Amino acid sequence: MTEVAIIMGSSSDWATMKETAKILDDFGLAYEKKVVSAHRTPALMAEFSNQAHEQGYKVIIAGAGGAAHLPGMVAAQTLVPVIGVPIKSRALSGLDSLYSIVQMPAGVPVATMAIGEAGAKNAALFALQLLANNDDDLYNKLVNYRAAAQEMVEQSNNELK
Amino acid sequence: MTEVAIIMGSSSDWATMKETAKILDDFGLAYEKKVVSAHRTPALMAEFSNQAHEQGYKVIIAGAGGAAHLPGMVAAQTLVPVIGVPIKSRALSGLDSLYSIVQMPAGVPVATMAIGEAGAKNAALFALQLLANNDDDLYNKLVNYRAAAQEMVEQSNNELK
Amino acid sequence: MTEVAIIMGSSSDWATMKETAKILDDFGLAYEKKVVSAHRTPALMAEFSNQAHEQGYKVIIAGAGGAAHLPGMVAAQTLVPVIGVPIKSRALSGLDSLYSIVQMPAGVPVATMAIGEAGAKNAALFALQLLANNDDDLYNKLVNYRAAAQEMVEQSNNELK
Amino acid sequence: MTEVAIIMGSSSDWATMKETAKILDDFGLAYEKKVVSAHRTPALMAEFSNQAHEQGYKVIIAGAGGAAHLPGMVAAQTLVPVIGVPIKSRALSGLDSLYSIVQMPAGVPVATMAIGEAGAKNAALFALQLLANNDDDLYNKLVNYRAAAQEMVEQSNNELK
Amino acid sequence: MTEVAIIMGSSSDWATMKETAKILDDFGLAYEKKVVSAHRTPALMAEFSNQAHEQGYKVIIAGAGGAAHLPGMVAAQTLVPVIGVPIKSRALSGLDSLYSIVQMPAGVPVATMAIGEAGAKNAALFALQLLANNDDDLYNKLVNYRAAAQEMVEQSNNELK
Amino acid sequence: MTEVAIIMGSSSDWATMKETAKILDDFGLAYEKKVVSAHRTPALMAEFSNQAHEQGYKVIIAGAGGAAHLPGMVAAQTLVPVIGVPIKSRALSGLDSLYSIVQMPAGVPVATMAIGEAGAKNAALFALQLLANNDDDLYNKLVNYRAAAQEMVEQSNNELK
Amino acid sequence: MTEVAIIMGSSSDWATMKETAKILDDFGLAYEKKVVSAHRTPALMAEFSNQAHEQGYKVIIAGAGGAAHLPGMVAAQTLVPVIGVPIKSRALSGLDSLYSIVQMPAGVPVATMAIGEAGAKNAALFALQLLANNDDDLYNKLVNYRAAAQEMVEQSNNELK
Amino acid sequence: MTEVAIIMGSSSDWATMKETAKILDDFGLAYEKKVVSAHRTPALMAEFSNQAHEQGYKVIIAGAGGAAHLPGMVAAQTLVPVIGVPIKSRALSGLDSLYSIVQMPAGVPVATMAIGEAGAKNAALFALQLLANNDDDLYNKLVNYRAAAQEMVEQSNNELK
Repeated sequence: MTEVAIIMGSSSDWATMKETAKILDDFGLAYEKKVVSAHRTPALMAEFSNQAHEQGYKVIIAGAGGAAHLPGMVAAQTLVPVIGVPIKSRALSGLDSLYSIVQMPAGVPVATMAIGEAGAKNAALFALQLLANNDDDLYNKLVNYRAAAQEMVEQSNNELK
Repeated sequence: MTEVAIIMGSSSDWATMKETAKILDDFGLAYEKKVVSAHRTPALMAEFSNQAHEQGYKVIIAGAGGAAHLPGMVAAQTLVPVIGVPIKSRALSGLDSLYSIVQMPAGVPVATMAIGEAGAKNAALFALQLLANNDDDLYNKLVNYRAAAQEMVEQSNNELK
Repeated sequence: MTEVAIIMGSSSDWATMKETAKILDDFGLAYEKKVVSAHRTPALMAEFSNQAHEQGYKVIIAGAGGAAHLPGMVAAQTLVPVIGVPIKSRALSGLDSLYSIVQMPAGVPVATMAIGEAGAKNAALFALQLLANNDDDLYNKLVNYRAAAQEMVEQSNNELK
Repeated sequence: MTEVAIIMGSSSDWATMKETAKILDDFGLAYEKKVVSAHRTPALMAEFSNQAHEQGYKVIIAGAGGAAHLPGMVAAQTLVPVIGVPIKSRALSGLDSLYSIVQMPAGVPVATMAIGEAGAKNAALFALQLLANNDDDLYNKLVNYRAAAQEMVEQSNNELK
Repeated sequence: MTEVAIIMGSSSDWATMKETAKILDDFGLAYEKKVVSAHRTPALMAEFSNQAHEQGYKVIIAGAGGAAHLPGMVAAQTLVPVIGVPIKSRALSGLDSLYSIVQMPAGVPVATMAIGEAGAKNAALFALQLLANNDDDLYNKLVNYRAAAQEMVEQSNNELK
Repeated sequence: MTEVAIIMGSSSDWATMKETAKILDDFGLAYEKKVVSAHRTPALMAEFSNQAHEQGYKVIIAGAGGAAHLPGMVAAQTLVPVIGVPIKSRALSGLDSLYSIVQMPAGVPVATMAIGEAGAKNAALFALQLLANNDDDLYNKLVNYRAAAQEMVEQSNNELK
Repeated sequence: MTEVAIIMGSSSDWATMKETAKILDDFGLAYEKKVVSAHRTPALMAEFSNQAHEQGYKVIIAGAGGAAHLPGMVAAQTLVPVIGVPIKSRALSGLDSLYSIVQMPAGVPVATMAIGEAGAKNAALFALQLLANNDDDLYNKLVNYRAAAQEMVEQSNNELK
Repeated sequence: MTEVAIIMGSSSDWATMKETAKILDDFGLAYEKKVVSAHRTPALMAEFSNQAHEQGYKVIIAGAGGAAHLPGMVAAQTLVPVIGVPIKSRALSGLDSLYSIVQMPAGVPVATMAIGEAGAKNAALFALQLLANNDDDLYNKLVNYRAAAQEMVEQSNNELK
């Protein structure tokens, strides 16, 4: 059963959100990916959100830019944890996306990541950490992933010298 | 028939949005006022928005603070023009509210006003201007309103001397 | 009779404001387009604004960048509703334009859109929504426009798979 | 077994983080609470983080202000999911806290909430949602909590009239 | 003949602009003071600006807050040098006022001072410096004024010990 | 006698400040141009400033970027009016330059222009307006300059059609 | 011999800079304290800076607010290391002070601390750390100081329970 | 013995931090350079920091971008003075890096430099100034370095003419 959904406000957000997908692929975790627009397809968004729990999703990763309403509006319509990724926007460099996603009122949390690609990658990793709470295999893979990251620092140091 | 609806994300927004109501009262224009929360009552919001046109609304004025999704989400679900009022927020002074309301993607406009009370007042006046396009009486009242504002400048000048 | 005017502070703003024009063209709505500079042609701006009502305009769309005084100053001199489009500026990416347009004092509203092209497009759509309040044909065209936008999301989803 | 830890950089952060505790209390969920300073007690922080998994924590909620390094540094030293709460700071109103917590590099995610009390409350709710993925009782309590929030909107509406 | 005019967008700006007046009073320089609102009295503003030169003004000091159009719009309608004072605003602390005044397009300069009272005082001093270019008496008074400011530093030092 | 000095903090600022020079050239006004660095040549800066009055300067135009101390420090050491031009900086786009120049404390005014080229041009025009207070020829040239700017708007309009 | 000087732009800055003094007092380190205004007493500032080295200073701590030129200008005139403390300002909360102090051009470093009291305290501690490089007694005192800070965390934890 | 260490959060930071190295090379000062990641190698960072004093370091220069925890976390674990260099980041241009580095709480100072290359250069110069307190040769080299910078201004002036 697919436990992770990656949704985004527009197909242009895929350029960023594919970084989420790549990491999930690397970990061999199945996921659904979908364009769900808060502004162009609000009914679809409501339907998606309302069914998310019985659909079996354990995490929803939502990327959006500008007046980025998608993560918060999905979070308002499901109790499945929502991770928000602020997409870098043209005029305001994603500061608008960040504020719109992170400044949620008490009652409806969105777990907000960094602006752009780093945030998209971390959304995947945070989802994996959540699932690893009940999956030792996954936990061990994450341990190895971090070990590899650590080794890259050592490599960097060898190259620096 | 009531042509204007004033909605707000929380009852605490009324402290600001009552400025909208006061001006409509001064002009003798009927309006509906309602708390409609994008995050706590998304289904109610959808219902309100979807029925707004047949309900006969010509303008919806929506105040919201923080990750202020209400104006944009209502605008996504109706073709009745939506005016957004960014409420001053605690940590970011309404800059988050402003970005969340004004930075809407192409396709779903929200007519954004200034942060706080000035914006709440102007939301009423903008609504009145829209309606005055087809209502000469209202137009003349607005002409008088502006004339009064102009006279207040003269009064200020007398007091200054 | 032409009910919509598109004005801008400088001919370089046309690169953004032509997005407004395109949408009005798509809807077959006539419009006037004009460079009216608050700073270089204040008398022309006053004349334009003062005559706007009797000229038959129902909406004025004004784009401006930097210390973007045009939308607010036109709004101060007419009761025709003014929609403001903040043009992206060089140093401050349009944040100066946004503040100068949206932070109007109580008494003189400007309906502010997003910075740049998205805002220019939405200015057209907001104008159309206003006019659609009294024009069922136009209303139906807008319904179709939104339906098409919704279909594009479905297409995006097919391409994503 | 205690599955949630609330940590904070300084005892003055408790004024905000007690909002997290209150909600967990309301849900009858046990939690550990502790001052762990990234800057004054880095060794304690490392020890806490390294033992968090075997300690049985499923979520760590970390509040910090200014150059708020605590959430990110704990996240760097454990795979237990970390939720970060940016505390409102004096000069920069929590914008520094927000940037320091949310802008984590790829590899080490922190699930960032809103600045201040709303964020503190939502940290608790997000933790509850995570745990509810494997706890139907908790899930139902959350469903009721949201229903109550919804009812408060109705109450607000009655009072407004 | 009165060579300096102090104008402001609203009588509430006088709380700041009286600092300008006080310094001019201290130097014994005559000035006109007037509320001239860009938004409420645009015609009066145009008249004031167009007559400023023949009126004999050598400097116009204009204070305004929010979407502070007054200094720029006066500058657009006269060649008398205009000094702009950004008034501290409620939500954005005068950052909106600053951007609206300082970010003038090429062609129409406004000499912008600091936000608030310091700016109001410096507007007076800058005006005095301009006039002192052709007035040795005034120049000497300014020399004394600076000497007094310097002595205050010495006094501060005595108190500090 | 040369009445205007253009100074800048570094030779790289010339790319911006040559816009000031061009306009003064167009008006046939002599000027001195000089690199005077507040940070690399503070003694030279002091000497330049202290002699500015007896040198016969009526206006000093100072461009600087980043922690742009030059305009304020020159203004602190002369009573000749100083116009400051904030140069666009790399990381902060000139916002640092703007704050450093405009936020002068009471006592030492700097007449601040817009960030970048527009500001550089306006510095020249403001200087010309100051001098035109006592020079009818110059005043008339400025009248013509504005008339030409006005005609450019008309041309733009012809091209737009 | 006094190795540390605390200077500030105005006597009102003492409210913040006395925090620097208190910590130096606690460590029993002698220091000079002085109001030295970049803008009101530039010659005094030059004199102070030029003599700082032969005076025997090893560190200069400079607090300033707004267009805070003092730290950078002193740094430009001496090779004694300068630590800058951005004082919280009225309109911009010290962001102007921070930018003016930290954004120094290559060639003239200022070691910038946090805005306000935290920065004032840290300026003292940083000065102590510099001097401790050649003073084992002082080094040991700093070790104890940090141990005490660590113990305060433990105390906070006892109170929290 | 090597008295200066240059560390950075990632090998990509070397593009900026090599500017630090170049200046130290020019002064013939030995230094260690190393990638030490706060987030990927926290244990290595702790080890590095804890040993820094006995290793003989007198200054640590740490560059980091985004949620730039490295400088502050190293400073928390050693009494060797730490200089922080905020690396320009993608979305927020280094403002996040700056806030994360400079806004340290009372107790753990980081001497913060400008964002990007200027800051990297100044980190080297500040380190040299610290060491020059006890090294007359080095002091004289710095005197010459500044004299050379001063001469470059003169050269710029010759080229400008």
